[in-house]
Amino acid sequence: MSSSFGTLFRVTTFGESHGPAVGVVVDGMPPGIAVAAADVQRELDRRRPGQSTLTTQRQEADRVEILSGLFEGVTLGTPIAMLVRNTDARAEEYEALRDVFRPGHADYAYQQKYGVRDHRGGGRSSGRETAGRVGAGALARLALATAGVSIVGGTVQVGAVKAVRRDWDEVEKNPVRCPDAGAAVEMAGVIEAAREAKDSVGGVVEVVARGVPAGWGDPTMAKLDALLGAAMLSIPATKGVEIGEGFALAARHGSETNDVLEGGRYRTNFAGGIAGGISNGADVVVRVAVRPASSIGRPQVAATKAGGTTTIAIAGRHDPCICPRVVPVAEAMMAVTLVDAWLRQRALRGREK
Amino acid sequence: MSSSFGTLFRVTTFGESHGPAVGVVVDGMPPGIAVAAADVQRELDRRRPGQSTLTTQRQEADRVEILSGLFEGVTLGTPIAMLVRNTDARAEEYEALRDVFRPGHADYAYQQKYGVRDHRGGGRSSGRETAGRVGAGALARLALATAGVSIVGGTVQVGAVKAVRRDWDEVEKNPVRCPDAGAAVEMAGVIEAAREAKDSVGGVVEVVARGVPAGWGDPTMAKLDALLGAAMLSIPATKGVEIGEGFALAARHGSETNDVLEGGRYRTNFAGGIAGGISNGADVVVRVAVRPASSIGRPQVAATKAGGTTTIAIAGRHDPCICPRVVPVAEAMMAVTLVDAWLRQRALRGREK
Amino acid sequence: MSSSFGTLFRVTTFGESHGPAVGVVVDGMPPGIAVAAADVQRELDRRRPGQSTLTTQRQEADRVEILSGLFEGVTLGTPIAMLVRNTDARAEEYEALRDVFRPGHADYAYQQKYGVRDHRGGGRSSGRETAGRVGAGALARLALATAGVSIVGGTVQVGAVKAVRRDWDEVEKNPVRCPDAGAAVEMAGVIEAAREAKDSVGGVVEVVARGVPAGWGDPTMAKLDALLGAAMLSIPATKGVEIGEGFALAARHGSETNDVLEGGRYRTNFAGGIAGGISNGADVVVRVAVRPASSIGRPQVAATKAGGTTTIAIAGRHDPCICPRVVPVAEAMMAVTLVDAWLRQRALRGREK
Amino acid sequence: MSSSFGTLFRVTTFGESHGPAVGVVVDGMPPGIAVAAADVQRELDRRRPGQSTLTTQRQEADRVEILSGLFEGVTLGTPIAMLVRNTDARAEEYEALRDVFRPGHADYAYQQKYGVRDHRGGGRSSGRETAGRVGAGALARLALATAGVSIVGGTVQVGAVKAVRRDWDEVEKNPVRCPDAGAAVEMAGVIEAAREAKDSVGGVVEVVARGVPAGWGDPTMAKLDALLGAAMLSIPATKGVEIGEGFALAARHGSETNDVLEGGRYRTNFAGGIAGGISNGADVVVRVAVRPASSIGRPQVAATKAGGTTTIAIAGRHDPCICPRVVPVAEAMMAVTLVDAWLRQRALRGREK
Repeated sequence: MSSSFGTLFRVTTFGESHGPAVGVVVDGMPPGIAVAAADVQRELDRRRPGQSTLTTQRQEADRVEILSGLFEGVTLGTPIAMLVRNTDARAEEYEALRDVFRPGHADYAYQQKYGVRDHRGGGRSSGRETAGRVGAGALARLALATAGVSIVGGTVQVGAVKAVRRDWDEVEKNPVRCPDAGAAVEMAGVIEAAREAKDSVGGVVEVVARGVPAGWGDPTMAKLDALLGAAMLSIPATKGVEIGEGFALAARHGSETNDVLEGGRYRTNFAGGIAGGISNGADVVVRVAVRPASSIGRPQVAATKAGGTTTIAIAGRHDPCICPRVVPVAEAMMAVTLVDAWLRQRALRGREK
Repeated sequence: MSSSFGTLFRVTTFGESHGPAVGVVVDGMPPGIAVAAADVQRELDRRRPGQSTLTTQRQEADRVEILSGLFEGVTLGTPIAMLVRNTDARAEEYEALRDVFRPGHADYAYQQKYGVRDHRGGGRSSGRETAGRVGAGALARLALATAGVSIVGGTVQVGAVKAVRRDWDEVEKNPVRCPDAGAAVEMAGVIEAAREAKDSVGGVVEVVARGVPAGWGDPTMAKLDALLGAAMLSIPATKGVEIGEGFALAARHGSETNDVLEGGRYRTNFAGGIAGGISNGADVVVRVAVRPASSIGRPQVAATKAGGTTTIAIAGRHDPCICPRVVPVAEAMMAVTLVDAWLRQRALRGREK
Repeated sequence: MSSSFGTLFRVTTFGESHGPAVGVVVDGMPPGIAVAAADVQRELDRRRPGQSTLTTQRQEADRVEILSGLFEGVTLGTPIAMLVRNTDARAEEYEALRDVFRPGHADYAYQQKYGVRDHRGGGRSSGRETAGRVGAGALARLALATAGVSIVGGTVQVGAVKAVRRDWDEVEKNPVRCPDAGAAVEMAGVIEAAREAKDSVGGVVEVVARGVPAGWGDPTMAKLDALLGAAMLSIPATKGVEIGEGFALAARHGSETNDVLEGGRYRTNFAGGIAGGISNGADVVVRVAVRPASSIGRPQVAATKAGGTTTIAIAGRHDPCICPRVVPVAEAMMAVTLVDAWLRQRALRGREK
Repeated sequence: MSSSFGTLFRVTTFGESHGPAVGVVVDGMPPGIAVAAADVQRELDRRRPGQSTLTTQRQEADRVEILSGLFEGVTLGTPIAMLVRNTDARAEEYEALRDVFRPGHADYAYQQKYGVRDHRGGGRSSGRETAGRVGAGALARLALATAGVSIVGGTVQVGAVKAVRRDWDEVEKNPVRCPDAGAAVEMAGVIEAAREAKDSVGGVVEVVARGVPAGWGDPTMAKLDALLGAAMLSIPATKGVEIGEGFALAARHGSETNDVLEGGRYRTNFAGGIAGGISNGADVVVRVAVRPASSIGRPQVAATKAGGTTTIAIAGRHDPCICPRVVPVAEAMMAVTLVDAWLRQRALRGREK
């Protein structure tokens, strides 16, 4: 059950990096919503490898095939299964890593957990698994649009460079997917430098949901903060998440950071649109810490299955900074989380809220 | 279903701040484990109000009553229900707030969600709900102990003051619950200053699990990072969570931060003991951002249910900094999360791992 | 997690027969519904022991205490915890059975499962656990009433005697809870005969939901038939369930049993109000096979924990036929199942259906 | 979420009868188990249409494609996605039924539930959905085999003809899949007669699990009876389920039907191998009532979407009795249910039980 997310809008991904395919089943998509394969493909294209020199050069067209759940272009309310074939799998390149646990990767943990693993490109732990998430997110966005909710996102930090502006229209105009055109240039430089050094660099991705009405999410265990936190930390290579002002609130006082409601709107948004686990009508703002990609070209010491160590240099096709490709994934996970919260609120109150 | 957490070790809390009682049902506790009420009471005592001048002066003995699931001092494997009566509920003090939405609180969000709310002390959104979590955590700790896992935690930041040392034996020796005796003094000063200013201050809590073997947690959607993230962000007043080095990884390179395994142990622990969502045998390290408590004595503008605004000053019994009391809650939620992961790994492999 | 039922309306029971208390937490009750303790007590009184000579003489007042989830007489949408103390527990009577596995009972299975068990009166496997279900059912009925749905039920077979009529107003007028006054007299005779013979006798209980609109329930795995089947077979001592004509359909032809819709209503109801797992607007009709109670006064051979056998005669307080007391439990479980289906349909369509 | 079954071994099916494909994702398959496509194909071949004149003549090869979760012939512990293409879909044949609600079918209920439906061959409500279940069941059987558990099943009633013998080796030797060779001939006659009369006939299917140790299943809400009941009643066209002697117990006394344990084995098996919801070491025995197939060639009155009625005769490819094809599906659902119970027991006790 580890591969499912959500209660009423339930997303289940499958697939290994170098197996036949990756994909997703989305169960709980509301009926009667127009969906075209192009709607899904557009989001997959934002995630797929090879978009620029800043990302991996693995060549995957990532063409989606929709297997179920649609009839005459409209959702049936039944499960929507979607499939992307792996076409540029090069298993032989990984043969040397069959009995090696790469530093920073999940190789050792998988081996200890399962007693068996697919060593080719990370297998299930590969970022390729996120194709299914993005497919699901495309559906979630279409559902949310009927509720007036839209989601934007971008890379707001790479290395030490931070975006100052949040010009969301800028995001798709630069390869870093940064909402600050000036910072984007600097960030691209940092990424190129990492790539040239056969290294990788981390960053931060921010996603924002606009138009979420007050009342989505639940108190206590299923707080919207908690569900969004789980959604984000389920994305490969993420190691932190914050809502609204997040960790910066640690150094602040209540008199400064208590959001005040006035005339049905909040004057400030320190809480990131969520109070007591429930949306309060302000923008929902989430930031995700993305670690440097573990695959780097530099020689590294690595443990072997036999118990010793060896030196490896991971050749080839990896991302020097995965933030640009995490952006559509984080947006997708936010969309998936919010649809679920929306449907739960509809269950609670029996009408559109 | 919003009040439950976990799959195989399932914790369900109930209760409002000023209702008859708060409590918890724990379903999935392994059978045959010795449990005494004192084991639970000890943890509840760490969470209860009125422990020092740094915390709220509400007087609650928080005496636990165990209603089920034990027989002759041993767990039966059946649900364990536990109850704490609310004895110092002063509903009348809140009458003035019946139609007011307090700044920073969840009042407005609850009203919009449910159309009805218990305005007395936050009702369900009160920190009192966490008594049930701590009770569940006490059981989880006993279960984990049989697997060789222990959990420590403490306040590592208050305002701008950060702990440098991690001397866990120090934690219960100072009222801040800080693992750095020197920093604890400074932190106490910051908290006292906030209290005198009728204000509140935020902070950061860190929890660490020791002895977790490699192999707990699941890939993709139920990553241990994700479950711990949800666990922490379900605690009232938390707005951020990070695993291992967390947000600091954004500014680093892969060549610096790839944890290297050698001789079955990791040399470093940037990943906080979790790789690909699965424990890797290193300490599991989680930090939680705690916002300043929303209840402050200073006059604040507040919205009214009628649509206008008023000025309020919240008299009396609130925490100037809730970090010291979040510590046992965060430990409890980590314990609860890890027991669940442990049981799932037992299901997967059919033997103790 | 074995003690929970439902997804959006989630019922979690707790308690052993001779422990301090039995009870329930209901999470997902819609907000804004008026609930009085008397509403719950009335249903509990229908289930409690000692109502007539046809049932066990254990003396339990079964007074409910509501611990949370209500405010000024109205549901908050938060968990409702309810408690019934065990007052007539006579643990000493069971001492002789500490190391004996009673025939027909779950003693051996519990021992093998858990390695430990509460031997006093069946512990968790006792019918006393159903008090929590009935409490939850009382809430579910109140919720369903707002949707125009009501539930009736009765004993329709005892031994070889079958009810012919379905006069639901008759049910509470006879101690068998049979909707056929004539058959009720015969049934009472069969039960009395069993009691005098220190034996027990089985029967069938029928429950019917009226006013369920078309569209509740889900296709495939969560068919309304399946959920009702699980609900009924989770009741102690049940060994069969059928929807509509059930097993009688095995001997029929499609041309006879295909329900025909005409003018928005079904002419017949062979399918028991559910088609393809979804309610079709006709009455939902479910029957449950109830086995003879396992506790009987006659001497029986019983296995011992040591591996041998002994002879036991279970003295005292047991039901010669549990059907009259299963009726409110089966009604409760149907109510619980239908509320969940209703809420899920509200989630799907976003308005009252 | 309606398309998923199970907690630790989670089966999610997808697909419409006349869409591109049907399939399944199995999440929770234990790692390290050898699986060949042929293992799955063999079970699918038992379910697929066109096996004899007693079943539908729709031509579907039902070739399985395994998309994930295997590596070098062994399960990885990750989700296993499987796909069967629909190749003999003849959507045009259903055009006349676009706005008609067929008697006995789920057409009307789907329309009321979703507001939209795929009218072609029942869409999601078609028996074709069960291909995914059978694929999952094939995996479940391989897992259970490692625990020493095997499953058999057969048609034990068609119309008024009941099997007397339970010679499970006989099942695959006759097209009815009856474990009684003599009864099989009679049953085949009944089915042929129904087919010639353009009608359909019901029956009963029995499935038995052998080798289940005591201790699987849970008390109260997740009783093994309840889970098996849900599993069976989730199969299309089923309207009843009984465990062990089931409904026959209603007419019996406790002194006759209390199973007595002696020397670690039960002398009798009235309870069908389950006591208090937990397996007791005896064979687990379940029977399922199968209604006559709703599709029949005879003219029938049918409601139209516009609110009137029409007369329809369903031409062509349908099953006069679906019991022979329900057998592998019921076996699959039992296997799926038992694997889940097994894994949960491993979680509880931490070792093979």
